[in-house]
Amino acid sequence: MTLLREGERLDDLNRNGLQIIQNPSKFCFGMDAVLLSGFARAGKGDLVADLGTGTGIIPILMSAKTEAAHLTGLEIQAESADMARRSVAYNHLEEKISIEEGDIKEASRLLGAASFDVVTSNPPYMEYTGGLKNPELPKAIARHEVLCSLEDVVREASRLLKTGGHFFMVHRPFRLVEIFEVMTRYHLEPKRMKMVHPFADREANMVLVEGVRGGRPMLKVEKPLIVYEKPGVYMPEIYDIYGY
Amino acid sequence: MTLLREGERLDDLNRNGLQIIQNPSKFCFGMDAVLLSGFARAGKGDLVADLGTGTGIIPILMSAKTEAAHLTGLEIQAESADMARRSVAYNHLEEKISIEEGDIKEASRLLGAASFDVVTSNPPYMEYTGGLKNPELPKAIARHEVLCSLEDVVREASRLLKTGGHFFMVHRPFRLVEIFEVMTRYHLEPKRMKMVHPFADREANMVLVEGVRGGRPMLKVEKPLIVYEKPGVYMPEIYDIYGY
Repeated sequence: MTLLREGERLDDLNRNGLQIIQNPSKFCFGMDAVLLSGFARAGKGDLVADLGTGTGIIPILMSAKTEAAHLTGLEIQAESADMARRSVAYNHLEEKISIEEGDIKEASRLLGAASFDVVTSNPPYMEYTGGLKNPELPKAIARHEVLCSLEDVVREASRLLKTGGHFFMVHRPFRLVEIFEVMTRYHLEPKRMKMVHPFADREANMVLVEGVRGGRPMLKVEKPLIVYEKPGVYMPEIYDIYGY
Repeated sequence: MTLLREGERLDDLNRNGLQIIQNPSKFCFGMDAVLLSGFARAGKGDLVADLGTGTGIIPILMSAKTEAAHLTGLEIQAESADMARRSVAYNHLEEKISIEEGDIKEASRLLGAASFDVVTSNPPYMEYTGGLKNPELPKAIARHEVLCSLEDVVREASRLLKTGGHFFMVHRPFRLVEIFEVMTRYHLEPKRMKMVHPFADREANMVLVEGVRGGRPMLKVEKPLIVYEKPGVYMPEIYDIYGY
């Protein structure tokens, strides 16, 4: 198997020697995926599913950060799924991570209902208003709700989880009211939340949320995560999460 | 009129020479009321109602911080309402602030539906589980949902407001999911939120929320408010809000 195809590159993940294959002209993982992998928790022996895994960044990082037994990444875009599979192979993680090509809207049918302890997702954040041209689609599918909505992600996460299972998602704060509404409607009670602010004196631009399938209402709002100490210099916590 | 009754004292509000009458054995205003008066906004000429005004702390502070035309405080406990009225008189604010004795559950009937630009509330935070004895009641009524629930406060705030009017509330983050659910149910769309953390590395223990009557969904999560720089030393922003 050739490792890299045209336009692709191999990026160091600064953790356990892990590398990931990405194509900068298509879609590269962002800080949101890294922060989600730091916020999410999985217990020893847990089964984990990642909805919309892209190049597999979240299962690859979580394989290093947790003692999960197995992680399944679901991705609808064939090219991304293929890159994710090659990254898994390159890191010798075939025993621990499997990548499935498929639609989030059918996740529970494809992967099995009530069969996961943990579901993670870094879904598209923006509502889709149409009008995109073909070459823009790979990026747009990752960023806009072209192929799945917030409700699709939450509904399938809920179906995939065992009772008491944990759902971890990163999203945009401006949609928090809707996020809570959809999560509670699908019995994923929000239990833990962390706001991410680019600087200490700026509005939050990301939110990390944990829901528990069938949990009782009681939200914990953790200390905020501040990304930059000053322009170009991360806060120590960010370096920790990135593993530098 | 005698200014102070037995057990009462006059406290300096550090703003425009304002003073407030309180009885430490009953209930004294907390930082939450001060932070709400800093978070809330009222435009020039606005009509403002404060639900569960206690000793009148929020209308008294907002009379100094805003150009509102008139502020009405509604309070069910006769003794608190009486203290609030005496504080208003002592500060020569009778033209600007009126204190009504009455039940939040009947606020829109008592004060007039769709007749306010701004509603503020620092309601009881804790669910009432019963079992309180009489001497504990004045404090308990301010802290526990003995006489009114979160839903009562939000429903009446919504009824009191004109379309496009603003609701400002301080509450506990652990109930945020329910706060959003009740607010949207009564057409007070959450538009702005600020978490309050006692220290930069601690969980949030208060949340400030602004809702707009009939607003469209789009939440802004402001930079967090950190109370203490170190034990006993407030952060500069807190001194600003307190007016020191």
